[in-house]
Amino acid sequence: MLVNGREIAEDVLSTLEKERASVGRTLALGILMSQGDAATESFIRIKSKAAHRLGVEVIRRELAETSTTEDAIAALQELAAITQGLIVQLPLPPSIDAEAVIATIPNNKDVDALGPKPHEVLAPVAAATLEILERAGVSTKGKKAVIIGAGRLVGKPVAEMLTEMGANIVFVTEHAGSLDELFDADIAILGAGKPGFIKPAMLKPGVVLIDAGTSEAAGGKLVGDADASCANMASVFTPVPGGVGPIAIAMIFKNLFALAKKHETH
Amino acid sequence: MLVNGREIAEDVLSTLEKERASVGRTLALGILMSQGDAATESFIRIKSKAAHRLGVEVIRRELAETSTTEDAIAALQELAAITQGLIVQLPLPPSIDAEAVIATIPNNKDVDALGPKPHEVLAPVAAATLEILERAGVSTKGKKAVIIGAGRLVGKPVAEMLTEMGANIVFVTEHAGSLDELFDADIAILGAGKPGFIKPAMLKPGVVLIDAGTSEAAGGKLVGDADASCANMASVFTPVPGGVGPIAIAMIFKNLFALAKKHETH
Repeated sequence: MLVNGREIAEDVLSTLEKERASVGRTLALGILMSQGDAATESFIRIKSKAAHRLGVEVIRRELAETSTTEDAIAALQELAAITQGLIVQLPLPPSIDAEAVIATIPNNKDVDALGPKPHEVLAPVAAATLEILERAGVSTKGKKAVIIGAGRLVGKPVAEMLTEMGANIVFVTEHAGSLDELFDADIAILGAGKPGFIKPAMLKPGVVLIDAGTSEAAGGKLVGDADASCANMASVFTPVPGGVGPIAIAMIFKNLFALAKKHETH
Repeated sequence: MLVNGREIAEDVLSTLEKERASVGRTLALGILMSQGDAATESFIRIKSKAAHRLGVEVIRRELAETSTTEDAIAALQELAAITQGLIVQLPLPPSIDAEAVIATIPNNKDVDALGPKPHEVLAPVAAATLEILERAGVSTKGKKAVIIGAGRLVGKPVAEMLTEMGANIVFVTEHAGSLDELFDADIAILGAGKPGFIKPAMLKPGVVLIDAGTSEAAGGKLVGDADASCANMASVFTPVPGGVGPIAIAMIFKNLFALAKKHETH
């Protein structure tokens, strides 16, 4: 089964559209980011488009190259005061200690579940994965789930979620574990960002394969960690582009709505 | 003489770069705008690029379609509190009374000279025109200057400036004046936004022709009010694109630096 991420995202967004009136008249998403990066610009444009559709104001602070860590933290706090959700879009300018900035994201505005715990919402890629598993009727209890990459946007949050759902997690990174673990994995979560390095012969037939390992191939084309031919081995397969990505974007807004409702003071 | 606007803009920006250290460590430009408009997005990107180069933080507030006039005014005031310069990028969403918003731009942050008078800086297109006239050694005293269009971004501010410089102004708009005035105009300022409608036969040989009447032709190409062949009749001619436009962008930052220096409180 090839997952149609655009269709699922459309579903999520249209449900949010119907809920919009119940959330509070004004709703704003704050984005702290660097200037002048074309990839960042294109990610932000996609988020802005969804915001536009949902009647969400977007406030972007494009830090200067000369901005300090203190400037960035102050900017984030100012954004927090006038928004219901915050995104720290990485990478920040090199003059800034991004870890220190991330550590100041308030829990009640953390739509990306990127800042300090406890997180009040699922990280967008974890939420997208959950949505895909539920729609495909995949049971996770007692299943072996191999997670390729232990990054904070994919590997870590998805592993946490699958652990709570009763799966047995095996991490494979550049420093630990072996890709051989994939041979008997029921579920594979790809988050390495290495174009097309997972091949069908490495997989168990019928595997549930969630590819969130987007990277940019020569020519600017988006590609996943899995070779496209893996689709033939998998019972559930998410293509890149058009799989996890659009659903994760929609989940940012699902999170924004949830946080806004929970912390509404008016 | 064909004016090389990109070269002049480069000159202005590199002078500002050298002055940057004298202006104050942090410098921020606030932009109030609508979401989802491709033309707006492209204008803002050009401004962001210049900001990036000059170490200026950009704070964009992309109003939602559902934003009210009160929301927009509040947003502008919040921006004013954390920036040294403000841009209200038109058009705003139709739900908003743009005039009412513009009327609240504080003089000391009004880098576009768009809000209530007194303006502390020249409107960017007027400043660009002045730069071009000075570099070309054009004297304006007692000269006949015909201004096509009486808009607030081009016609009005340039007319005001040229009046102060001793020129005799004649406005030609859709409702008043005749294009025949161009026959004996020493200086022509074009700000109508009608592609290529000014032809060489309408002009006095040797005219100083400043074309700030940018519009978008079929295929998305930027074109001016003057037919390109007017260059042969003019002693000074600004092409579109690459004439007034880039210089006006640079002037926004010249204005930002001037206002920041004047009102510096630290």
